Amino acid sequence: MSTAPTSLASTALRQSLAARLREFMPRSSVLTEEEDLRPYECDGLSAYRRLPWIVALPETVEQVGRLLRLCSEQDIPVVARGAGTGLSGGALPLEDGVLLSLAKFNRILEVDPANRTATVQPGVRNLAISEAAAPYGLYYAPDPSSQLACSIGGNVAENAGGVHCLKYGLTVHNVTGIKFMTMDGELITLGGKALDIPGYDLLALMTGSEGMLGVMVEFTVKLLPKPERAQVMLAVFDEIETAGDAVAAIIASGFLPAGLEMMDNLAIRAAEAYAKAGYPVEAAAILLCELDGTSEEVSEGIAQIRTLLLKQGAAEVRVSRDEAERLRMWAGRKAAFPAVGRLSPDYYCMDGTIPRRHLAKVLRRISDLSKEYGLAVANVFHAGDGNLHPLILYNANKPGELEKTEELGGKILEFCIEVGGTVTGEHGVGVEKIGQMCLQFTRVELEQFHALKAAFDPRGLLNPGKAVPTLSRCAEFGRMHVHGGKLVHPELERF
Amino acid sequence: MSTAPTSLASTALRQSLAARLREFMPRSSVLTEEEDLRPYECDGLSAYRRLPWIVALPETVEQVGRLLRLCSEQDIPVVARGAGTGLSGGALPLEDGVLLSLAKFNRILEVDPANRTATVQPGVRNLAISEAAAPYGLYYAPDPSSQLACSIGGNVAENAGGVHCLKYGLTVHNVTGIKFMTMDGELITLGGKALDIPGYDLLALMTGSEGMLGVMVEFTVKLLPKPERAQVMLAVFDEIETAGDAVAAIIASGFLPAGLEMMDNLAIRAAEAYAKAGYPVEAAAILLCELDGTSEEVSEGIAQIRTLLLKQGAAEVRVSRDEAERLRMWAGRKAAFPAVGRLSPDYYCMDGTIPRRHLAKVLRRISDLSKEYGLAVANVFHAGDGNLHPLILYNANKPGELEKTEELGGKILEFCIEVGGTVTGEHGVGVEKIGQMCLQFTRVELEQFHALKAAFDPRGLLNPGKAVPTLSRCAEFGRMHVHGGKLVHPELERF
Repeated sequence: MSTAPTSLASTALRQSLAARLREFMPRSSVLTEEEDLRPYECDGLSAYRRLPWIVALPETVEQVGRLLRLCSEQDIPVVARGAGTGLSGGALPLEDGVLLSLAKFNRILEVDPANRTATVQPGVRNLAISEAAAPYGLYYAPDPSSQLACSIGGNVAENAGGVHCLKYGLTVHNVTGIKFMTMDGELITLGGKALDIPGYDLLALMTGSEGMLGVMVEFTVKLLPKPERAQVMLAVFDEIETAGDAVAAIIASGFLPAGLEMMDNLAIRAAEAYAKAGYPVEAAAILLCELDGTSEEVSEGIAQIRTLLLKQGAAEVRVSRDEAERLRMWAGRKAAFPAVGRLSPDYYCMDGTIPRRHLAKVLRRISDLSKEYGLAVANVFHAGDGNLHPLILYNANKPGELEKTEELGGKILEFCIEVGGTVTGEHGVGVEKIGQMCLQFTRVELEQFHALKAAFDPRGLLNPGKAVPTLSRCAEFGRMHVHGGKLVHPELERF
Repeated sequence: MSTAPTSLASTALRQSLAARLREFMPRSSVLTEEEDLRPYECDGLSAYRRLPWIVALPETVEQVGRLLRLCSEQDIPVVARGAGTGLSGGALPLEDGVLLSLAKFNRILEVDPANRTATVQPGVRNLAISEAAAPYGLYYAPDPSSQLACSIGGNVAENAGGVHCLKYGLTVHNVTGIKFMTMDGELITLGGKALDIPGYDLLALMTGSEGMLGVMVEFTVKLLPKPERAQVMLAVFDEIETAGDAVAAIIASGFLPAGLEMMDNLAIRAAEAYAKAGYPVEAAAILLCELDGTSEEVSEGIAQIRTLLLKQGAAEVRVSRDEAERLRMWAGRKAAFPAVGRLSPDYYCMDGTIPRRHLAKVLRRISDLSKEYGLAVANVFHAGDGNLHPLILYNANKPGELEKTEELGGKILEFCIEVGGTVTGEHGVGVEKIGQMCLQFTRVELEQFHALKAAFDPRGLLNPGKAVPTLSRCAEFGRMHVHGGKLVHPELERF
């Protein structure tokens, strides 16, 4: 996607807006020059790019309020941006709106060990919260792969997950307070340190709302005590479906691992070549299962799950003997995406979620589709959550291969919906999956979403074009997905 | 509150509505006779009573849809009702609307041990879910005191808690799917068995929405493995503030008890006289602290918390030696409300939540206020959550004592807000605490609530007059709470 040249009228409007913004923000916090705007043209989903019209970097809540009021008065749309590590294009800028970066909101306001909470600004990095809490033996649990770089504001906006969300929940389960500004520049306080709040649950509603309802300026998050010990085991399987069934068996047995990840052969080989983690390159699949807690609890759990895995058909189960070995076992998993990236000029990372007991069935279907389309698919994912990340390998320079990839990706997500799952687990909808939302939801449900959006932002100025498709867009999308004159999903007939 | 006599016009309208309803529901499922209506005149908050105009008991989703469409067309308001055990008057009927009982929606549709979920209808009793899950070693965690009688629909509508929500979360943390009908009779499906859903988090929004946004007709809830072992300890304190500080110390130490309850001397004596639980009747306060998990984990935790409690100034710590003793220790706590009820002709049960580290300060303030008003207050509550239940003892037959009690209650809730807490923990707002909502939220925040309500129910037909006060009501409430010409809370000045 390329940038349309900025018209003269638009340039004049931009200069006048910049001048107004500079009345209450330093000159250097309002960017309009192309070389300054360039770093903001995409987030982590680099396939979608657009040069922002103007970038503002306020430092105070008051500045955010004045900026929003000004934009509201002039009908100028606003896209909020955190660290820009998102994977669904949620922070893709507009060619006629303000990109509001919260990078300067980077202070940890309080760590409160007695209430086990931290109060932080949106630009604080995920890992920085745990670092600040470490002296008290506490940490912040949600751990997206990007946790070194990503900021809590984006985590809340996308309801981020991570390897440990199986046991400790998604971001929504770890936030107890939010302050946000409405598009009119009014401050709203939701929750705080107490555990329940009366009134409608706007706190959960704001979490995962992808910047569509307000601009969040402060968070109170839960801190958890660091577990005494963590240990990981690696189970080797000769068939991927046996591994899928083993995941369901572990969950059904009552254990709650801190992490439960699966990789298939293609992913294993790529990761091993890249990270030398000691993975069995002949295996059809491996499971990584981590337990944490007290020392006794971990020992007992490891012994019992080991027995269960062998009973479920694991060819071998290795248990980490020390912290170095634990980290090495994880190193392959953590490097899997870039490692797979080396196998092929391009890859497309999917993010679907399914009820866990259907893992084996969905993996089989992905394998069949991969053969049908002649495109390799590597699977590396949060098996314990049923959160799949199929990586489709392709070459964008081969004519038609991108289209074939997108079609295959669409079929995989449609199958996720068919077994009772969803089109996204932890990456959000953004611009990337807005079409699949038409499959996920009915017309009535989307209408309800739009009514809700209007209750916060009646003129649609906050992050327009993201997360929730318009009904006309779905009608368009529906037509695109007709196969042989027959619609894939009956809901589509309603559009 | 008494019932206004039904006018002739209203009676005619009622008969015509009943006839329309009987076109698709059995005659016996549409009640209009006073003796049939009487059981529905209040919920668990019996101070508020009103004879319903008409009661409908549909049995199918289709019937609910037709009923709602009919009422929507005729502008007739609707109040949904579960088992009627609520404590804030949320199901108080209207004199000009339909009371929609979901009592006939009482089927457990599925228990799915592999996904650890149960799918149930709204009229299913809370405990019945755990009973159905027991053969698989699973249970449903939220356990309000009324769990024998209350139904899951009401639990979700009020976001119910319970003794174990400290460790296992409120209802909102244990529901993964909801189907509800809009006031126009359209079915909306939220979530299911997968762990995350794209789009705005309407699932959390519906939870705790007190029947204001839609009529819920089906739920998917999480099931948890039954812990191997549970053990409780009883710590005796000579000063209530020392007990309050001990609670904060346990939480700060990193332990997560399955339950952590406090009772003060008045509550201890009442409970002991009633339930013979073996409580120390001279103690200023006791803490009941339960741990669950594997056998080793529980043993280790008990030993460490025992040491901590003694260090924090506990005069004595008793540990349950077997299941019989554990149940006996809990028996006093569970009987505390009726036991306190025997001390006085009337009592008023409050429900406020505070950040846990302020427990000692708030308890001291309650004690001071109790002396100032000359009204005894017993404290029995979920200390680990910071969820207070002060019980104010009074005699409604003494002129002016009810008013004094309400004023004292209001002061306690205002102090909860002052230390960063909220006016309700787990009982909801209903009709009871609608005035305090004016203190909890600013005008902007309440306006946001009303906009949100309008996005679901633009004509305000669902449970009108509950949960969220109108701005004019707050203006009225503000005037009522002026003391010596001075407003208690600065926010009030905005009304």
